[in-house]
Amino acid sequence: MVSLKRLAVFFAMEEEAMPFIQSLSLAPDKDFGDSKLPFRYYRGRFKSSFDVLVAVNGKDPRYGVDNIGTEPATLNAYITLRQYMPDLCLSVGTAGGFQHKGASIGDVYLSTEAFRFHDRRIQIPGFSEYGVGHYPVFEIEGMAETLGLKKGVVSTANSLDYSEKDWEMMKKNNASVKEMEAAGIAWVAHLLHTPLLGLKAVTDFVDSPEKTEEQFFAHFALAIKKLHSNLHQVLDYLASIQ
Amino acid sequence: MVSLKRLAVFFAMEEEAMPFIQSLSLAPDKDFGDSKLPFRYYRGRFKSSFDVLVAVNGKDPRYGVDNIGTEPATLNAYITLRQYMPDLCLSVGTAGGFQHKGASIGDVYLSTEAFRFHDRRIQIPGFSEYGVGHYPVFEIEGMAETLGLKKGVVSTANSLDYSEKDWEMMKKNNASVKEMEAAGIAWVAHLLHTPLLGLKAVTDFVDSPEKTEEQFFAHFALAIKKLHSNLHQVLDYLASIQ
Repeated sequence: MVSLKRLAVFFAMEEEAMPFIQSLSLAPDKDFGDSKLPFRYYRGRFKSSFDVLVAVNGKDPRYGVDNIGTEPATLNAYITLRQYMPDLCLSVGTAGGFQHKGASIGDVYLSTEAFRFHDRRIQIPGFSEYGVGHYPVFEIEGMAETLGLKKGVVSTANSLDYSEKDWEMMKKNNASVKEMEAAGIAWVAHLLHTPLLGLKAVTDFVDSPEKTEEQFFAHFALAIKKLHSNLHQVLDYLASIQ
Repeated sequence: MVSLKRLAVFFAMEEEAMPFIQSLSLAPDKDFGDSKLPFRYYRGRFKSSFDVLVAVNGKDPRYGVDNIGTEPATLNAYITLRQYMPDLCLSVGTAGGFQHKGASIGDVYLSTEAFRFHDRRIQIPGFSEYGVGHYPVFEIEGMAETLGLKKGVVSTANSLDYSEKDWEMMKKNNASVKEMEAAGIAWVAHLLHTPLLGLKAVTDFVDSPEKTEEQFFAHFALAIKKLHSNLHQVLDYLASIQ
């Protein structure tokens, strides 16, 4: 395990991040990052154990919505890792799960195997593997089992729905959860040699006839509650193994 | 028109960039950017008119291929705009064109209307428009007509091929060329208030039964030759209107 002095936690959406920021009484840090960018940062300490920085992607000023997707996630990861130099980082948020893999709404998954993309199809040798990414996952032996987290591959793309080609790629990726940021963060974390974990709560089933956006809104509150309960347990676990 | 002191030119692939770097005798600048990132920079001057920096995305160390796609393009745009502070930037490269829109192999398109994504589908009001992006294009009146460039919307996604959903989005985007970086760069340029042009040469037809990768390799040399001839004309034009 790394010696943990600074932990960075990435959320794409404000509503995903706020319960965590409030429960840890983190304070906004307006001097962190780049004031020209929409990202928001909150800092503080987890018990007497380590410093925490939460990086949120902020809002698009034109449409008033959260800057979700891989481009803001990539840029925010770079700014955060370069300036905060964390020993460990976490990509945390909501995700789609798969009924045929035994997922239930509200299940929280810890990343295993690799972070992968399922919407970067480049049918040229070398580029094909580059497109999928296969960025390393930092695995903490025994943590998932101790905390009752499910384990699986986090697969990333820039759409809330999926195309047939996305489906094929998710299958090849051995995806257990589908979300919209982790592989972008993982590319940066890999370049900057920073260990990364993914923690993702299931709001919807990818393999369901119901529309993703309807499932997402119906289950968001429940998934967020479970996500934050598990996130606290992860931080306690990290503190306990120092 | 902006007063042009510094021009930044973005290429994703080394083979796209090298003819331009060589013809302008630009020198590598190893101190520019962030040595932890794979990006490469070349600097010099265009005639007696303005300084030029070429930013190339470099190689993936694991697969030995160019860092194509929107995540590296976004991050490289940020590094470049923040450190070089250009008055104008250009996203230059190869692209797919559309036969049904009258494209020929080797045609060079200048961006119009807006930079858009066609693989960020988020079916929630506000998020839907955010996903497409609609980032501003800097238009220089009369330049395309004077130089004999075609004009059209540059539409961006992270795959070399396209899915049916991509096709629908490209149609909605009024896409004239399809490539893999411009909208990522455009998001950053928009945030940092830097004017951006796109210049894209057609290597393949999106609406052709032939495989994109086969067309791409067959026509790459021709497209690159035409692209660089037109890029020089664009720089001459920019110098002439100062």
